[in-house]
Amino acid sequence: MTTNILFLSTPKRWAEYEPPLTHALAATGLDFRLAEELPAAEVDYIVYAPGGATDHDFTQFPRLKAVLSLWAGIETVIENPTLTAPLARMVDHGLTQGMVEWVTGHVLRHHLGMDAHILGQNGIWEPIAPPLARDRRVTILGLGTLGTACGRALASLGFPVSGWSRNPKTVEGITCLSGPDGLKQALSTADILVLLLPDTPATRDLLNAQTIAQLPQGSVVLNPGRGTLIEDAALLAALDSGQIAHATLDAFRIEPLPADDPYWAHPKVTVTPHIASETRATTASEVIAENVRRGEAGEPLLHLVDRALGY
Amino acid sequence: MTTNILFLSTPKRWAEYEPPLTHALAATGLDFRLAEELPAAEVDYIVYAPGGATDHDFTQFPRLKAVLSLWAGIETVIENPTLTAPLARMVDHGLTQGMVEWVTGHVLRHHLGMDAHILGQNGIWEPIAPPLARDRRVTILGLGTLGTACGRALASLGFPVSGWSRNPKTVEGITCLSGPDGLKQALSTADILVLLLPDTPATRDLLNAQTIAQLPQGSVVLNPGRGTLIEDAALLAALDSGQIAHATLDAFRIEPLPADDPYWAHPKVTVTPHIASETRATTASEVIAENVRRGEAGEPLLHLVDRALGY
Repeated sequence: MTTNILFLSTPKRWAEYEPPLTHALAATGLDFRLAEELPAAEVDYIVYAPGGATDHDFTQFPRLKAVLSLWAGIETVIENPTLTAPLARMVDHGLTQGMVEWVTGHVLRHHLGMDAHILGQNGIWEPIAPPLARDRRVTILGLGTLGTACGRALASLGFPVSGWSRNPKTVEGITCLSGPDGLKQALSTADILVLLLPDTPATRDLLNAQTIAQLPQGSVVLNPGRGTLIEDAALLAALDSGQIAHATLDAFRIEPLPADDPYWAHPKVTVTPHIASETRATTASEVIAENVRRGEAGEPLLHLVDRALGY
Repeated sequence: MTTNILFLSTPKRWAEYEPPLTHALAATGLDFRLAEELPAAEVDYIVYAPGGATDHDFTQFPRLKAVLSLWAGIETVIENPTLTAPLARMVDHGLTQGMVEWVTGHVLRHHLGMDAHILGQNGIWEPIAPPLARDRRVTILGLGTLGTACGRALASLGFPVSGWSRNPKTVEGITCLSGPDGLKQALSTADILVLLLPDTPATRDLLNAQTIAQLPQGSVVLNPGRGTLIEDAALLAALDSGQIAHATLDAFRIEPLPADDPYWAHPKVTVTPHIASETRATTASEVIAENVRRGEAGEPLLHLVDRALGY
């Protein structure tokens, strides 16, 4: 029997996902139909990534076996009272991998002083080699899945890596620090500082005038985490004073970052448009296909949302 | 008894090496004297990195136990008939590490499309995430110490890595190819091509109009190897036609690269001034200190030159 899968999203996302999702579903060996439009009565699974409102009426799908979200955050989806079928959120292994690539790439960019070469093709031959990674200390604030994976990748390249978390942790190859004293120490050795903390009341404005002053002079800040971690005025002041040499920022309090935001124009800031931890169609399609296979085989779905807990 | 070590080089290099070499020698526990000038009759070791000619008269050092070169290439040094003491060349582990950092950094730079962000802070928010490393194929031509180390680092980040060498090799995690057919295959899958071959008659002009045509359209070329590997006119033509999207070059037929060389001005070329595999003072000093320690302990020196073989 054919398994019918409705792709409920935007035309743009359909164009992006149709090939990899078809490929991943075909690899399961299932007889399936994947489409943007299907008779509601025949829909078995919904791949869900609405472009706007999440108030779809799910009661129109009597055969619905599960809703498979393309988003990790499903806060608004679980509030939909018509959705009673099992709901799986996206846990994309590509998301961690993408973060490791962004962080490793930008750490190496600053470590190697690449910008001078990319921006300054002026015919002047100045063969000054950078120090080795072992002489460039990196500190990662946040030792969750992302921070730990990034720390491991950087340590394997030879960087001395410190990691800070609210509660004590142990990660092989990383100097793990915690608590207020640990934070001070972690900041004091951060030639390059990477922010990978979640957005909580405790982490809001963590990088402020006081903590910035605890960094070595001329350190570099990378923020692929959350926009709220940084007190923007304090960072701009530290860039102007030279306390911070450069900031590469991927997350902002307001996104898209407004065109007149001072970050865009600042010569010591690189804005990247929240791409460090973007869900990738290829890896996300593999997670969706695996969940359809599980659903059809009567196996428990991956990343099932517990509605009582809210995630 | 004090071990006397003469640093025979340029004032600039003395300024660079005095602190790390003093540090490394002190760590051996030896009683030593390190200086740019010493009574010739008292010299035990010479750290050798002449700025110009290599026709020093070594017969003036009657106590000389060994000459420790800061250079890997000692072709001109061994031709000096007055040098009969043991000669050690530099094999700097920092050189391999530095190459891994340069190659990994520039592969990630092109993989992540960083230049668009570094050069284009125009206030336009275009959140297009690059593919993951697993979908970006890297080919390394040359599987010596440097090529193998770079291939391993890239493979551990998730890139599918092919490596090509003249004779068949096996490296775990790398698709190893060899011979003319292997070269064609290696080129055909090179989204990013890294040149790490030695300069030999067989490798000269290896990247030419014919081999460039075997690359996927829009591939990126990195050359941290030798300037002679590339037929420059063919590369420039391929950059203009779009067959090659970008070239980042660290080695050139003439160095310093003349200010009027078309590579400097080409918008699709990044010149780096032969810094990918620079000997680092910190790691090279460790090798020198270890050899002084070995000499004083009567142990065989590291990287001793065999004058019959010439290396």
